[in-house]
Amino acid sequence: MKSTAQKAGRPRTVADFGENRLITDLMRGFPTRRDVRAGVGDDCAVIGSARDPQWRLFKTDSVIESVHFVPEEDLRRVGWKALCRPISDIAAMGGVPEHALVTLAAPATMAVTRARALYAGIRRAALAFKVAVVGGETSRSPGPIFISIALMGSVESHRCIRRSGGKAGDALFVTGWLGGSAAGRHLDFHPRVTEARWLTGHFKVHAMMDLSDGLASDLPRLASASACHFALWKDQLPKSKGCTTGEALSDGEDYELLFALPLRDAAMLQEQWPRAFPKLPLTQVGVLLPGPPIPTLPLSGYDHFAHG
Amino acid sequence: MKSTAQKAGRPRTVADFGENRLITDLMRGFPTRRDVRAGVGDDCAVIGSARDPQWRLFKTDSVIESVHFVPEEDLRRVGWKALCRPISDIAAMGGVPEHALVTLAAPATMAVTRARALYAGIRRAALAFKVAVVGGETSRSPGPIFISIALMGSVESHRCIRRSGGKAGDALFVTGWLGGSAAGRHLDFHPRVTEARWLTGHFKVHAMMDLSDGLASDLPRLASASACHFALWKDQLPKSKGCTTGEALSDGEDYELLFALPLRDAAMLQEQWPRAFPKLPLTQVGVLLPGPPIPTLPLSGYDHFAHG
Repeated sequence: MKSTAQKAGRPRTVADFGENRLITDLMRGFPTRRDVRAGVGDDCAVIGSARDPQWRLFKTDSVIESVHFVPEEDLRRVGWKALCRPISDIAAMGGVPEHALVTLAAPATMAVTRARALYAGIRRAALAFKVAVVGGETSRSPGPIFISIALMGSVESHRCIRRSGGKAGDALFVTGWLGGSAAGRHLDFHPRVTEARWLTGHFKVHAMMDLSDGLASDLPRLASASACHFALWKDQLPKSKGCTTGEALSDGEDYELLFALPLRDAAMLQEQWPRAFPKLPLTQVGVLLPGPPIPTLPLSGYDHFAHG
Repeated sequence: MKSTAQKAGRPRTVADFGENRLITDLMRGFPTRRDVRAGVGDDCAVIGSARDPQWRLFKTDSVIESVHFVPEEDLRRVGWKALCRPISDIAAMGGVPEHALVTLAAPATMAVTRARALYAGIRRAALAFKVAVVGGETSRSPGPIFISIALMGSVESHRCIRRSGGKAGDALFVTGWLGGSAAGRHLDFHPRVTEARWLTGHFKVHAMMDLSDGLASDLPRLASASACHFALWKDQLPKSKGCTTGEALSDGEDYELLFALPLRDAAMLQEQWPRAFPKLPLTQVGVLLPGPPIPTLPLSGYDHFAHG
């Protein structure tokens, strides 16, 4: 099957591929090591031998001016977001964030006060989640402000939750409210580290991920990784105030947890959760079903290249 | 003392600060953790408890189009360089590189063939130095092509060599030839992992770093971190073919090792080195001296913001 670009006779661009296919294509043939438990395709890389009681988690994430935030944005909030995004990925594996490196590429004309605001936001997140920022780099760039965070964390091997462990019949839950992130929440969200640790400490969670691209994109990914079909109860979605079902499904940047656990544990979870987290709702939004995983996304989600 | 910018009444920019002062300023007040052995100011962050036999090394490094390479450059060579730069930092601590994550931010119009060339170069370096690339990210950017690598490695705690361990009287050595990197070697260099491992396995190396900004910038850093003065034997420099002494001192991007070890071991090192590495010269370029460290750089080196 030829792409639109090929039919038109122009060279294919990274946008023609889309982010997921591009990464899979580019990463082909890379060497691995015996201690790599998970690489491309999960929220974090997982490193450790099968016998190690503790595994290391490794993640990078970047935030770019005019792509992830507007130029006039308060850089304190951008700094918070920059570190909280990979923290959310570590949380989604059931882990604890520990050490970070910060990369800033910026035009030489950037005011020092703005750079300080950015780092103040990063520092606030580091303090809130007990992350040691152990170094980093600043570099001159002709382009937009670019912030990249590399984050290491750890997780007990028996509490490391991947996307692929879901089983047919599992109940699907999400934390918090969905949709409306563009109104500002995408800069102020709280990664669900405490909640995920509580979940893996008290329940047999089969599969988990964080909602970064929206439930419409992310749920099919979890189901597909778990080799399952799914049923989504659209009328049950915990919609943010003023949001439609479509927005709750597709806005993205919710940074809430999506997880699957045995249906027989669902009632006990729903009983215990409000005592542990009285301010944060927990909602069952569907179930995993037997049958072939859905090959394509049923609803549009966010693709980092497609929205050119 | 007021800066030029303050005198002129305009806000100070990141370029006014320069890279080293900027990083120190921005990183003020960040939380740390008890297991952080070294953070800002060494080649890598070092993580592990004092009793651990093995420590983790953590480093990020970025390469930006029009700053670190020209737009028409072969992206295979750029990919090689992107991964080899942080490998060189791991080597400089005496460590072994292990796991990497790759971040690519690029315009949506970038041809897939060019992205593939870039990753082919990264893959070649990964294979050469046994690094597992365990994931990464691609993101759309309006700006120049931006590649950032996050690299983890490890080192036996007793073989972890920092910049700060040099002692007055130590002999100072450099591997390879210096200068002339702009002619192309800055894209094709070989990080000195094997050489550094051999050195720390056979000799009591006191301090070590890799030469990224040129001996004129980097030697004062090592001496200053070691609270020493130094004597540099300029007429002894191993100059690359066709290079002046000034170029050997200041071109930068040599990615050779600079290290200090006890003078009494220097003769044995010079005897054994050529048998281990017959093709790579090893040259004593000076000694560490007692006395206050030199507060400012004696010769101009590379500053990532100053060369606007």
